[in-house]
Amino acid sequence: MNVASVTVGDELLIGQVVDTNAAWIGEQLNLVGARVTCNITVGDDDADIQRALARAFEEAELVLVTGGLGPTHDDVTREAVAAFFGAPLSLDEAVLAALEERFSKRGRPMASINRRQAMVPQGFTVLPNPKGTAPGLWYAEAQGEEERLIAVLPGVPHEMKYLLEAEVLPRLRERSGLEFIEHRTLLTTGIGESSLEDKMGDLSAYLNHSVRLASLPSTSGVRLRLTGRGSAVADVVADLDRLEAYLRERVGRYIFGAGDETLEGVVGRLLRERNLTVAVAESCTGGHVANRMTNVGGSSSYFLGGIIAYGNHVKYDLLGVPDDVLERDGAVSEAVARHMAVGVRRQLGADIGVSTTGIAGPGGGTEDKPVGTVWVGFADANGDRAVHFHFVDDRILNKELTGTAVLNMLRMSVTRTGVTE
Amino acid sequence: MNVASVTVGDELLIGQVVDTNAAWIGEQLNLVGARVTCNITVGDDDADIQRALARAFEEAELVLVTGGLGPTHDDVTREAVAAFFGAPLSLDEAVLAALEERFSKRGRPMASINRRQAMVPQGFTVLPNPKGTAPGLWYAEAQGEEERLIAVLPGVPHEMKYLLEAEVLPRLRERSGLEFIEHRTLLTTGIGESSLEDKMGDLSAYLNHSVRLASLPSTSGVRLRLTGRGSAVADVVADLDRLEAYLRERVGRYIFGAGDETLEGVVGRLLRERNLTVAVAESCTGGHVANRMTNVGGSSSYFLGGIIAYGNHVKYDLLGVPDDVLERDGAVSEAVARHMAVGVRRQLGADIGVSTTGIAGPGGGTEDKPVGTVWVGFADANGDRAVHFHFVDDRILNKELTGTAVLNMLRMSVTRTGVTE
Repeated sequence: MNVASVTVGDELLIGQVVDTNAAWIGEQLNLVGARVTCNITVGDDDADIQRALARAFEEAELVLVTGGLGPTHDDVTREAVAAFFGAPLSLDEAVLAALEERFSKRGRPMASINRRQAMVPQGFTVLPNPKGTAPGLWYAEAQGEEERLIAVLPGVPHEMKYLLEAEVLPRLRERSGLEFIEHRTLLTTGIGESSLEDKMGDLSAYLNHSVRLASLPSTSGVRLRLTGRGSAVADVVADLDRLEAYLRERVGRYIFGAGDETLEGVVGRLLRERNLTVAVAESCTGGHVANRMTNVGGSSSYFLGGIIAYGNHVKYDLLGVPDDVLERDGAVSEAVARHMAVGVRRQLGADIGVSTTGIAGPGGGTEDKPVGTVWVGFADANGDRAVHFHFVDDRILNKELTGTAVLNMLRMSVTRTGVTE
Repeated sequence: MNVASVTVGDELLIGQVVDTNAAWIGEQLNLVGARVTCNITVGDDDADIQRALARAFEEAELVLVTGGLGPTHDDVTREAVAAFFGAPLSLDEAVLAALEERFSKRGRPMASINRRQAMVPQGFTVLPNPKGTAPGLWYAEAQGEEERLIAVLPGVPHEMKYLLEAEVLPRLRERSGLEFIEHRTLLTTGIGESSLEDKMGDLSAYLNHSVRLASLPSTSGVRLRLTGRGSAVADVVADLDRLEAYLRERVGRYIFGAGDETLEGVVGRLLRERNLTVAVAESCTGGHVANRMTNVGGSSSYFLGGIIAYGNHVKYDLLGVPDDVLERDGAVSEAVARHMAVGVRRQLGADIGVSTTGIAGPGGGTEDKPVGTVWVGFADANGDRAVHFHFVDDRILNKELTGTAVLNMLRMSVTRTGVTE
C-alpha cells in the first residue's frame, strides 16, 4: 500500500516549528509494511491544500493529512478536504456533545468557535479524539474497482499519534491485509557499537526479511531495536523471542533495560530494591552524575548527595584525598579516583561512593593525559577500585560518557557481586 | 519571490531522520522576504524527483532541492535534475581537482565513487562546498520573459546552511531585489513573558511591517528577537538600533546577553572579570546548577565546586545547617536556604555561596509547600539572603527554572551591588 502525506501549517513553511510528525508517521507506516511515497507540506490555504490533495492522490491510494483542524479561522483543512470531495459540511451533534462535555469537565465554557470542530463532511467517519478537541476524519471513496482513502488528523503530535495508532492503523490492517508488526528495544551500555556487533556473532539464523535488528548509539549506550513482521501474530512473537533470547545469551551482561527505561532509572530501581544508598564525588563531570540521578522521581530514597570537587583543595578538604597523593599522581589518576570514592562514602555515610576525575576539555590536556582521559572510582564496605577510560575531544560528550560509565559501574557492582552495606 | 523546496531522501520518508532543514530554510527565506509555498519530500528515486521538480515549478519560480548528492549509487539527485532540464552531465575538472585536494589534505586516497560528485549538468554553475565533498549547483533557465531558478544543495545540515547563506541568498538578493534583513536576539531572564510585555510598554512607535519583535520563552528566560528589513542597510540598522535602545532602557536589567550567549556563560564571564569564586549547595536541583556551570569551558577558574545535600543529614553534617532550624522551619525554608549558602561558602572557601532547596516533585508536596515551592539562597562577605519562588508541577522543569533563578541571582548580585571578597 502506498501512502502520501499532506502536512498543513504556515508555521512549518516559515520555520517556526520543525515537523517531527513526518518522521514518526513514516516510521510507523513503514513498520506495518506501507510505503510513504511523498510528503507535501503546504500552508493554511484552502486552494493550496486542495492542490496538494490532488497531487497526493496521484502518488498513493491513501492520503494522510495532518494539521489545520483547530478552532480558529486560520485552520481550513476541514473545509478544504470537504470541498475536494464535494462533501458538504454539517454539524455533528454527537461530536458537539462530546466537545461540550470535554469543556464542562474542566469547568470551562466552550467558546463558540469550537463548534467548527464539530463540523463533519457528509459521508465521513469521525475518529473520536479523547486527547484534544479536534476529532479525526476517515473516508473511503470508491473509484471504479479502486478506492481512494483519506485520513485527516490533528497536527498536535500526541493527538496525531494516538489517532494513527488507535484508529487509522487498525483500519489499514483490516482493509489491506497489512502485516502485523512488533518492535522491541534492548538497551545496552558499557560496550561500543562495533564490539557489540562482534560479540553478537553470526545472526544469520535469526535475521531475515521479516526479522530485523538495528543498533542506535548514544552517550548512554547502544540501543538494539528488534523488529518483526508477518501475517501471523504468533509467528512474529516467536521469531522475536528467539532473537531476543539469543541476544540476551550473547550480550546479556551489557543489557541494562528495555523500551523507554533510562540507565539512571534502572540503577535507581536496583539500589532501592537492595536498600542501598549512594553518594557521588564529581570532578570532571561537575554535577552531571548527580543531576542525572536526581532527574529520577523518588531518587531521594537512595541518593544521599555528593561533593563536587572542581577545585583541587576541595578534594583534600572535603574528600580527604591526601595531598601527597594528589601531588604525586596528579588529580586525574587512579589513586585520586579511589580516594574520592572512599571519601564521599565516608563523609555522607553512604553504602556506596562513586567518583569521577578526568580532563573534560577543551583545555587542560597534556601529552600523558590528553583531553578525554578519565578515571571512575567505586567504594563500598568491601574496598575500592577505579577504572580508566579514554573518551573524546568534546567537553559535553566527555561529561555524558563519564556519567554513563559511573552509572554502569554502579549497575554492574550492585547486580553482579553484591555490595556489602 | 515564491520558493518551493524539494527534499530528497528515503531516510526522511521511512522516519529514520527528522527533517530539520526544512524549518531552517523556511525561516531564512521568510526573513529575506521570500515565501516558501510548499515543501515536497520524496525518496531517492529518479522519476519521483523529476515529478516533484515539475510540481514544484508549478508553485514557484525558484526550486530549492536538498539531499541526494552523496557519492553512492543511491544518491540520484544530480542525475534527476540533469535529466529534468535535459542537460547532459560531464566531469568538471576543477571540481575533481578540488575533491582530490580535499582527500589528499586528509592523507586519504579518494575513492573512485567520489568522481560522481564532480559531474556537473551542462550550463549549471558549481557552488563550491568547502564543508564537504558535494558541491552545490545553480541554474537559471529562461522561459520567455520569465525564468526558472534552481539551487541544488547537499542535505547535510551544516553544508546546506553554509551554501544557502554564502551562495544562494546573495544570488537571490542581487537578482530579485530581495530585502536586506538583520535579526538580533536579546536574552532576558528573571521575568515572565507577560510581565516583560507590560514593562516594554507601547511599542507602536518602534514596530511596523519592517521592524518586528518576537518573544520566545524557555526555562532560561525569554528571548526577544528583533527583526528589521528594508532595501537600505543603513535604514534597517538604524531602525533596529532605535528599538534595541528603547528595549534596553525599559527592560535592560533583565537583559543578560545577546545572540548565542548562555546565562551560565555570561555569569562565568562576570565572575572571571571580577576575580570572584563561587560554590553551590544544591538540594532540589540535585547537581543541575553545578552541571550547567561546568558545561562552560574554563569554568574551573571561578567554580570551586559544591555540596549536593539531598539527604537532610548532609545539610547539617557538611553545610552546618543547625538541626533546630531544620526541624523548626523544615528543609524547604528561607532559613535553611540561607544557612546552606553560608555553609558552602565557608566550607569551600569561596567568595560567593549559592543554594537551592525546594520540592521538585512529583512527591513531597504539602498544602503549605506544594510541588514547585523553592528557596534560593545567596551569601557573600556582606551577608546572606534568600528568595522564594513558586514554579510548576514538573520535576525537570522545576530543576531547570531553579537553576536559572540561581544563575540570575548570581548575575544580579555581581553586577548590581558588587560582592565583597
